[in-house]
Amino acid sequence: MLAINHRVGIEASAEKVYAALTTDAGLTLWWTNDISGAGDVGSIIKFRFNGGGPDFAVTELIPNKTVRWMHSGTTPESWIGTEVLFQLQADDKQTFVRFTHSNWQENSDFMAHCSTKWAVFLLSLKDALETNQGRPFPNDMQIDHS
Amino acid sequence: MLAINHRVGIEASAEKVYAALTTDAGLTLWWTNDISGAGDVGSIIKFRFNGGGPDFAVTELIPNKTVRWMHSGTTPESWIGTEVLFQLQADDKQTFVRFTHSNWQENSDFMAHCSTKWAVFLLSLKDALETNQGRPFPNDMQIDHS
Repeated sequence: MLAINHRVGIEASAEKVYAALTTDAGLTLWWTNDISGAGDVGSIIKFRFNGGGPDFAVTELIPNKTVRWMHSGTTPESWIGTEVLFQLQADDKQTFVRFTHSNWQENSDFMAHCSTKWAVFLLSLKDALETNQGRPFPNDMQIDHS
Repeated sequence: MLAINHRVGIEASAEKVYAALTTDAGLTLWWTNDISGAGDVGSIIKFRFNGGGPDFAVTELIPNKTVRWMHSGTTPESWIGTEVLFQLQADDKQTFVRFTHSNWQENSDFMAHCSTKWAVFLLSLKDALETNQGRPFPNDMQIDHS
């Protein structure tokens, strides 16, 4: 199965990382400045980038451990059927975030683009929690000139 | 087959990007400051990070289009049998680099770490060519606190 995988280590407690993945206020620190709907399992989170963007249904939450979303709706088309999983594991120095965006149908240029872009946003999450300097859209690091 | 995929767009000619992938001087701009052996097909490139690091054999070169390396030697162990491919495609604004590190045997934490780290180094390649501000090891962006 085609998947995007990443791993970062964040100098913050698992509780703080979990909050940044499960609340509108936390998610807007690092992914995009327009997010609504985050909540319990069954919630639909709307991530918006200049008006458009994906929806994800929250499908699993284990406090300070696991956050799982299933793509919902029809945008972007190649994300239909995909799943995003964040697995947290803390040690004495940091909380590791293991990220998986799985169930892609095609190893396309767009999948490769999203892989790089997810790295950028996970580093934004790291910076948001460590230095209060996240770079959510529209201040995200650009990876091309499109 | 498990693979790491990335794609960046660099405001530089395909010739300049190709040089940064096929010469010791070019590679040291963005990956690590200790590189030797880059050359024609059959060359073994030694990438060193504080003394240790991977070797890759150059297996395919199509000028300004394709650079392919097969891992050589035994370090790191989970890279044995893996292949790295850079595919370049220029348009009027940029040269896209499609990166693939394929043939991983296991979707491990280390593979996820390498995926994020490759993104960091490809952004270093982009910055090296666009602003002369690459961040090769030991000045590379840190993604954890190990």
